[in-house]
Amino acid sequence: MKKVVVLGAGMVGAAMAKDLVADAEVTAVDVNSENLSRLAQQSSVHTIVADLSDLAEVKRRVAEFDLVIGAVPGFMGFKTMQAVIEAGKNIVDISFFEEDPFELDALAKKQNVIAVMDCGVAPGMSNLFLGYHNATMDVESFECYVGGLPQVRTWPFEYKAPFSPIDVIEEYIRPAKIRIDGKIHTRPALSEPELLHFGEIGTLESFNTDGLRTLLQTITVPNMKEKTLRYPGHIEKMRLLREIGFFSKQKIDVNGCAIRPLDLTTRLLFPFWKLGEGEQEFTVMKIKIAGRENNVRREYVYDLLDRFDPATQISSMARTTGYPCTAVARLVLAKRFARVGINPPEFVGADQGCFQFVLDYQEKKNIRYRKTVKDIV
Amino acid sequence: MKKVVVLGAGMVGAAMAKDLVADAEVTAVDVNSENLSRLAQQSSVHTIVADLSDLAEVKRRVAEFDLVIGAVPGFMGFKTMQAVIEAGKNIVDISFFEEDPFELDALAKKQNVIAVMDCGVAPGMSNLFLGYHNATMDVESFECYVGGLPQVRTWPFEYKAPFSPIDVIEEYIRPAKIRIDGKIHTRPALSEPELLHFGEIGTLESFNTDGLRTLLQTITVPNMKEKTLRYPGHIEKMRLLREIGFFSKQKIDVNGCAIRPLDLTTRLLFPFWKLGEGEQEFTVMKIKIAGRENNVRREYVYDLLDRFDPATQISSMARTTGYPCTAVARLVLAKRFARVGINPPEFVGADQGCFQFVLDYQEKKNIRYRKTVKDIV
Repeated sequence: MKKVVVLGAGMVGAAMAKDLVADAEVTAVDVNSENLSRLAQQSSVHTIVADLSDLAEVKRRVAEFDLVIGAVPGFMGFKTMQAVIEAGKNIVDISFFEEDPFELDALAKKQNVIAVMDCGVAPGMSNLFLGYHNATMDVESFECYVGGLPQVRTWPFEYKAPFSPIDVIEEYIRPAKIRIDGKIHTRPALSEPELLHFGEIGTLESFNTDGLRTLLQTITVPNMKEKTLRYPGHIEKMRLLREIGFFSKQKIDVNGCAIRPLDLTTRLLFPFWKLGEGEQEFTVMKIKIAGRENNVRREYVYDLLDRFDPATQISSMARTTGYPCTAVARLVLAKRFARVGINPPEFVGADQGCFQFVLDYQEKKNIRYRKTVKDIV
Repeated sequence: MKKVVVLGAGMVGAAMAKDLVADAEVTAVDVNSENLSRLAQQSSVHTIVADLSDLAEVKRRVAEFDLVIGAVPGFMGFKTMQAVIEAGKNIVDISFFEEDPFELDALAKKQNVIAVMDCGVAPGMSNLFLGYHNATMDVESFECYVGGLPQVRTWPFEYKAPFSPIDVIEEYIRPAKIRIDGKIHTRPALSEPELLHFGEIGTLESFNTDGLRTLLQTITVPNMKEKTLRYPGHIEKMRLLREIGFFSKQKIDVNGCAIRPLDLTTRLLFPFWKLGEGEQEFTVMKIKIAGRENNVRREYVYDLLDRFDPATQISSMARTTGYPCTAVARLVLAKRFARVGINPPEFVGADQGCFQFVLDYQEKKNIRYRKTVKDIV
């Protein structure tokens, strides 16, 4: 049996470890022993308490495994992946680090390592779909709308997240790079609000976020944008806080104390945005890919609506982010995806067999991407 | 010629000093020499730089005058008035202090002093109208809607004030006492939003504020409420900031610094809410007084819309707050209002001659309270 190690046993890491035990001997490593003991109680996953910010420790820990799953917090992701590659181990990663992954490409090739990163839902599945169609059609435009939202809408934010407010606010600050007619443009965060209607969910609002990431480098489609979905009204509240200066990282003096307003704001927002244990939430995504295929102008639309699973108590966020990663992990273990070097998911999607496997794998978990095709006349 | 001293030469104090020179020899006292030198340039007002938080200084300064006008900041108002009364001088005041003025009533009577307080627009004119009608009819309900707003509406607040954000936010925190069917009820600040339509201004929203003050003690009308007016949308933004905790006075730790969130918030809001020099603004007020008069059920409505005066560059806030005070000052100087003790403006309004004088005085300044009377059938 293959041996897999999952680095990071947070909400998504734990769900992935539990999923992988069906096909592998799985060990989870985390600095938080509570996360690990809960995981050990619920599954046959082995657990090791270790500090993964110590890169020598990372290298030691991964040595005996066939594959590494990276699920550490984003700010640790790049260095962790570098250490894993230096250790000569294949890795499939969902840490969503900010750094340019291709800085590690030469190293991965030298080490003969297969590294797949950004392997979640968006980034992740969105890249996979575009990679797939880009291989078979002349894609002219790509649009991705995605959001994770609580079932119960509570004033004022109608929003919950399983991660820190500071990571959410980062999406409300960082300008978004999009591509229009072949040129990269920068749009302010929270800009270009647009209402979208989802049958079961109702109306949501979307705004530009900086989520295209590797797609801007790897794929030459002339029109690409990514937008995040929230319940209507969220944008205006976040714009208000940003405008006042509550998201500012510039220290200002308050009665003799120099503080960053953002640090106070994240403190105050934490209890509002914290996703409760077992709280019902869902993931909604719409991907539109249009272009010319066999001399016909055609649009493909993929719609996802996935909900918290009451049977397993696994959140939709963990399901939709984790299972693309565990599907790709199986492809790498089986050598069905074997491209050495750094691979964003669009490289996986470009292989039709791999693409279909990842979709089928999620379908078995009841994560269904509903496909609509229409010819544009 | 009578000698009048104005304590405090801020925006309203300066406007009052300039107004009073027509009928008196006027001296203005302020700690801020810039305020005073501007005033001296524009008028024949004498000026003295002095720190009025020193109460012995207050007593010395008022000694040679026939009348004192109190226009210090609210937090200094009560003690300043006490010092003036101890010095045996009559005073008409617009400092809008929080303390119960009637605590000074016995002292004023002992000193044979006429003291009129809250003598602005609201509190002020609102009290005057109710005092007037309460003397001649059986008033069943009193409603006051009032706001000072900028002409130009700028996102996100569409609000400007000539005073500190902390004084504005206090109105958004402090619960409002209102009277319903003879009983005092407490309502949260910013509660019971209600839209009102004003011909020239458009639609405004109103919310409960704690502005009835002395009326709850002096007048037994069974239904009384005061609401503040803003451009629509302001309430929701203020409720959001309050809900998050940005108006909190509880210290919390931010990276090792204990700060009150309110202190950061007022720092950040200051540039947004600061009324610019010469910035166009207006005051809008609607007062409804209903009851039984000569066996007929009748409603009186008074509507005020007053704007920044480009000729004098005096703001509407200073005009509508300052001229009721200077009108009453003239009544006191002429011994036409001579009730010894503490007098809120409802006591002045109860005298028909005084009431008419204050209205006529403002009409000459083009501050018009449009009266509508209708019998309720």
